[in-house]
Amino acid sequence: MINRLNNKGQKLLKKAKEIIPGGNQLFSKRSELFLPELWPAYYKKAKGCSIWDLNNKKYTDFAGMGVTTCILGYADEDVNKAVKFAVNNATMGTLNSYEEVELAEELVKIHPWSDSVRFARTGGEACSIAIRIARAASQKDKILFCGYHGWHDWYLSTNINSKKLDTQLLSGLKANGVPKNLKNSAISFEYNDLQSFKKKISLYKNEIGTIIMEPVRSVKPKKGFLEYIQKTAKKIGAVFIIDEITSGFRENLGGIHLKYKVKPDIAVLSKAMSNGYPCSAIIGSKSVMEHAQDTFISSCMWTERLGFAASLATIKKFRKIALQNKLIKYGKQIKNGWKDISHNTGVKILIAGIDPIPQFNFEKNHIIKSTFFNQEMLKRGYLVNNRLCTTKAYDEKIINKYLDNAYDVFNLISKFEKKGKDLPLLGPLRHETFKRLA
Amino acid sequence: MINRLNNKGQKLLKKAKEIIPGGNQLFSKRSELFLPELWPAYYKKAKGCSIWDLNNKKYTDFAGMGVTTCILGYADEDVNKAVKFAVNNATMGTLNSYEEVELAEELVKIHPWSDSVRFARTGGEACSIAIRIARAASQKDKILFCGYHGWHDWYLSTNINSKKLDTQLLSGLKANGVPKNLKNSAISFEYNDLQSFKKKISLYKNEIGTIIMEPVRSVKPKKGFLEYIQKTAKKIGAVFIIDEITSGFRENLGGIHLKYKVKPDIAVLSKAMSNGYPCSAIIGSKSVMEHAQDTFISSCMWTERLGFAASLATIKKFRKIALQNKLIKYGKQIKNGWKDISHNTGVKILIAGIDPIPQFNFEKNHIIKSTFFNQEMLKRGYLVNNRLCTTKAYDEKIINKYLDNAYDVFNLISKFEKKGKDLPLLGPLRHETFKRLA
Repeated sequence: MINRLNNKGQKLLKKAKEIIPGGNQLFSKRSELFLPELWPAYYKKAKGCSIWDLNNKKYTDFAGMGVTTCILGYADEDVNKAVKFAVNNATMGTLNSYEEVELAEELVKIHPWSDSVRFARTGGEACSIAIRIARAASQKDKILFCGYHGWHDWYLSTNINSKKLDTQLLSGLKANGVPKNLKNSAISFEYNDLQSFKKKISLYKNEIGTIIMEPVRSVKPKKGFLEYIQKTAKKIGAVFIIDEITSGFRENLGGIHLKYKVKPDIAVLSKAMSNGYPCSAIIGSKSVMEHAQDTFISSCMWTERLGFAASLATIKKFRKIALQNKLIKYGKQIKNGWKDISHNTGVKILIAGIDPIPQFNFEKNHIIKSTFFNQEMLKRGYLVNNRLCTTKAYDEKIINKYLDNAYDVFNLISKFEKKGKDLPLLGPLRHETFKRLA
Repeated sequence: MINRLNNKGQKLLKKAKEIIPGGNQLFSKRSELFLPELWPAYYKKAKGCSIWDLNNKKYTDFAGMGVTTCILGYADEDVNKAVKFAVNNATMGTLNSYEEVELAEELVKIHPWSDSVRFARTGGEACSIAIRIARAASQKDKILFCGYHGWHDWYLSTNINSKKLDTQLLSGLKANGVPKNLKNSAISFEYNDLQSFKKKISLYKNEIGTIIMEPVRSVKPKKGFLEYIQKTAKKIGAVFIIDEITSGFRENLGGIHLKYKVKPDIAVLSKAMSNGYPCSAIIGSKSVMEHAQDTFISSCMWTERLGFAASLATIKKFRKIALQNKLIKYGKQIKNGWKDISHNTGVKILIAGIDPIPQFNFEKNHIIKSTFFNQEMLKRGYLVNNRLCTTKAYDEKIINKYLDNAYDVFNLISKFEKKGKDLPLLGPLRHETFKRLA
């Protein structure tokens, strides 16, 4: 059953909204995106793929494993051992952490095209550093981009008096507080749409110093798409940046661009690289990265030891157990399961995403059905959404149990649909776009 | 003795410079700022105010305790206990950390003028968030500032075709890679110089939407200085931001502006707040902070549990032991000790800084003498610079021992000076300004 009367998480969230604008620090962790008013909202502890809410109720996490970070599972023993070693021996010092150099060497080894590395702690700031370096290297300010790259001015400026970001990952993003003089400094193109790319190139090719994109998000790149962009970047003398924050360390050790045989000038890594501990990296060719020294890119917390230690331990374990095989296999199993469920219940869905981050959309009335799906799965002890992230903590049995429950809920949806009845929602519809919270 | 032949730290640093532009992630942790070619550069472990280098040589840290972060000392038991609890129970989840709300409540309680909080992980990005919110609230892009506020575009833009930042904290900062269209978007004024402030106000008062400053850095504010700026901000309708990243949690629990009875619209906290774990906070009045919801400010790693847990534990312990008393007392003892040493040896220095962050400059040939001081103190088992940060890990005895050693080195300087001889430096002079590293 869903806890309505004594949902401690929702009570705390109410308090949070009083003192934290928007209620938390990350749009994608908003309760409203999953199940408004009913979502457990906060956790006490988590282990493997289990997570306990403030009422001590245990759930199995099929809702993204910490916004796609925890590929090894929550509180992985090996990563935590490395982290606790760093904690015991101090994570901050007047001197630097040697793990910083070890991690830089490791990342260069994994990405043989690269030979230079900088670090930060969050994904958005890492993209921002990559942009700074690219602008310093190219000596041109204009950026051509595709995909989602965070909250910073350079990216948000796209939406000054415009809604151009609506066709990228998140719609409804507002650019209030971004300097108006940045208008038209970032130009977007659409994924897998060479036409749109070529159009922007023909309009701005002399001004563009940077091209930044996600290599893959919900669909795979069309044949030749990434290669064409790489080739064009070289031709017009632009720095080519691949943002691997979401796509890296899933289908392979390192950025997924390695798999597609694309060679950027810079790649940005975070999230899965450290299994959820704050760390991000900007890797690149020395000739471009050296321009970091012509500008000022410096922050105290970037030197902190824990992020390096967690990343090194995550990478070591990823390599040792060839984690990509599991992440892909589990993703395929889930996608196939969804296909069967959809086929057997007649509830039509569209399946997308790379195998380690599978997602589906209901063909009709997606938001209503998706809210109902999240609600009914919550009753059954699952945190779900229509997008998830595979993790070492899954196994065939856990996935089959999830699929059995998902089947039951799809069946319910089918029954209501056949009777022409509304789905019995216990709370408001889940949000889809960015909006102000009361 | 100084390890020249088998300095493992310097060997690693050489390797680091090959793959990390600049060698590390923070200007203030560069070996070159302390003792080029001879500094131990990296640490293996640290505890209290002791730190061990890669050769297992132990030093006592009088060089800033991790760039002024570790007010409770390295690897503080109580903070680490809270951190390890979070690590064991997972620091990242699909759900949010309840400690996030607890920390927000704590910060609002400490700063009664505030009622709204956002978090980030690093200081520079926290300033950047404060600026975004202020610009969104004021609907004006131009910023008037004083002091050091990080690496972001809004700040660095001051130095586009200019060297105006040279009179703030760090000289030599280059603005390569910062969009040229941001030129003249940030206007500087000088600390304790109402004349320079008034001049800029008279020139730009209709355009300025934000005033940001450090409340205190090396000297205390003149009577009425902060108050006048606060009053002017209100008068011209600008958002008034106090950057407490360096000054907070030293002379008092929370921002030092509380002590000076200044009431900003926003204050930015980091560093000492979490005893060196990555965390930063933007606190403010609800009417201003609510504008965070009119723009997009969101990052995955800002939700990570460890920063909140470390900050809560640091604040709890700070309050329990009234840490400010120790930090001030130790600072006074050090300043008085320096004064005596200078008087007794005849080596003249200028002493500055708030008591918990005391600093001195040699009156004549500062860089040469300072390099020699760092070198000779290193021989005696001390990491030093001409600026340090007091910590709970000190006591009278530790400080007296440091002062005894400092006296010996000052005495040496005095002897060489009297003989008209050059100080026998074993390596290059330490750097003072930002410059490219080979």
